[in-house]
Amino acid sequence: MTRPAGRFISLEGGEGAGKSTQARLLADTLRQSGLEVLLTREPGGTPGAEAIRQMLLAPPAPGWTAAAEALLFAAARADHVARTIIPALARGAWVVCDRFLDSSRAYQGGEGGLDDADLLAIHRIGSHGLLPGKTLLLELGADQAGERLHARDGGSSDAIGGRDAGYHAGVAIRFAELAVADPDRFIRIDATGSPAAVHHRILTAIGAPHPC
Amino acid sequence: MTRPAGRFISLEGGEGAGKSTQARLLADTLRQSGLEVLLTREPGGTPGAEAIRQMLLAPPAPGWTAAAEALLFAAARADHVARTIIPALARGAWVVCDRFLDSSRAYQGGEGGLDDADLLAIHRIGSHGLLPGKTLLLELGADQAGERLHARDGGSSDAIGGRDAGYHAGVAIRFAELAVADPDRFIRIDATGSPAAVHHRILTAIGAPHPC
Repeated sequence: MTRPAGRFISLEGGEGAGKSTQARLLADTLRQSGLEVLLTREPGGTPGAEAIRQMLLAPPAPGWTAAAEALLFAAARADHVARTIIPALARGAWVVCDRFLDSSRAYQGGEGGLDDADLLAIHRIGSHGLLPGKTLLLELGADQAGERLHARDGGSSDAIGGRDAGYHAGVAIRFAELAVADPDRFIRIDATGSPAAVHHRILTAIGAPHPC
Repeated sequence: MTRPAGRFISLEGGEGAGKSTQARLLADTLRQSGLEVLLTREPGGTPGAEAIRQMLLAPPAPGWTAAAEALLFAAARADHVARTIIPALARGAWVVCDRFLDSSRAYQGGEGGLDDADLLAIHRIGSHGLLPGKTLLLELGADQAGERLHARDGGSSDAIGGRDAGYHAGVAIRFAELAVADPDRFIRIDATGSPAAVHHRILTAIGAPHPC
């Protein structure tokens, strides 16, 4: 089989781009080829990080400042990296992670106003600066993402997903800028079409074996 | 009246040194002299930061890594500084805070192993690097602190207070090092004796008016 690139793969993109679905399909395909795969998500992946997730998605009034939000994401990530991701990589498993550092850079950085250098500094302090080998950026027009979200949950959303259209447009632009700045790590994926079609594009992009 | 030094005063020290009692006594005396005083504590001081406090003192198993713990304290502090401390200072109030940044430096830095420069970097990013005008370090021998804690709650403690004697001895040494390194901000206070005696020492040290 073709040797797939990288053992730690993150999926990034805005709300409704299909990250969770594609992470699950990718993990399934990798497992079918005999690999041990850890399928995980951020914020989350450990009991502590899942508890932080709840505070982020349903914050106490009046909500978090951008700085507090960035530090909470970083705290959850530090626990997740130390307790779950690094041990999995150390034993040779593949890690497929639904959102990672780049979400903090696009949300708290781009739209939240925090400096990218500061977010990277926090990541170095909290999580040894660990980066995915490959980051799949799922890109979808705002209209199509909105349709998918509406089909999924009738349009309701959490404290971050519920921010306005301008906010999410800014996030999408920031993700694209990050991808352009680091073409060795990022792979931009056209997220239009059926889940199977997008899955096929992802397998091709990372050089993984396609199922028959 | 003598003009007291500084409007933002933090009280630091190990468990059982009398910080909460002395913070309350100091706030009372300042109020009696006609000042507006915000008496607050860390982690805490806002609804969000109090929620983080609960996660820190009663963490999900298996507890936080030192890095995650430092980032959670920093997130709570960022919310507290932005929402409570800076607005109070801006309207001319005095702020008396039971623990602040130096506790992170002594606990997650000294004993937790994080670099002091990294903790200061996180503080700059999260809380604009805000420092108290004066920091009162309440110093008490380990034996006496233990007796006070036992008298207060029968020796039970939270996830941080319950760490072993060697940990707390290391914290006390780190506090002393921080005080020696920044003599303009720190005032070391002998915390032995009655609450009234310690309160008297604090008022003398900061040049505040003594009650009759």
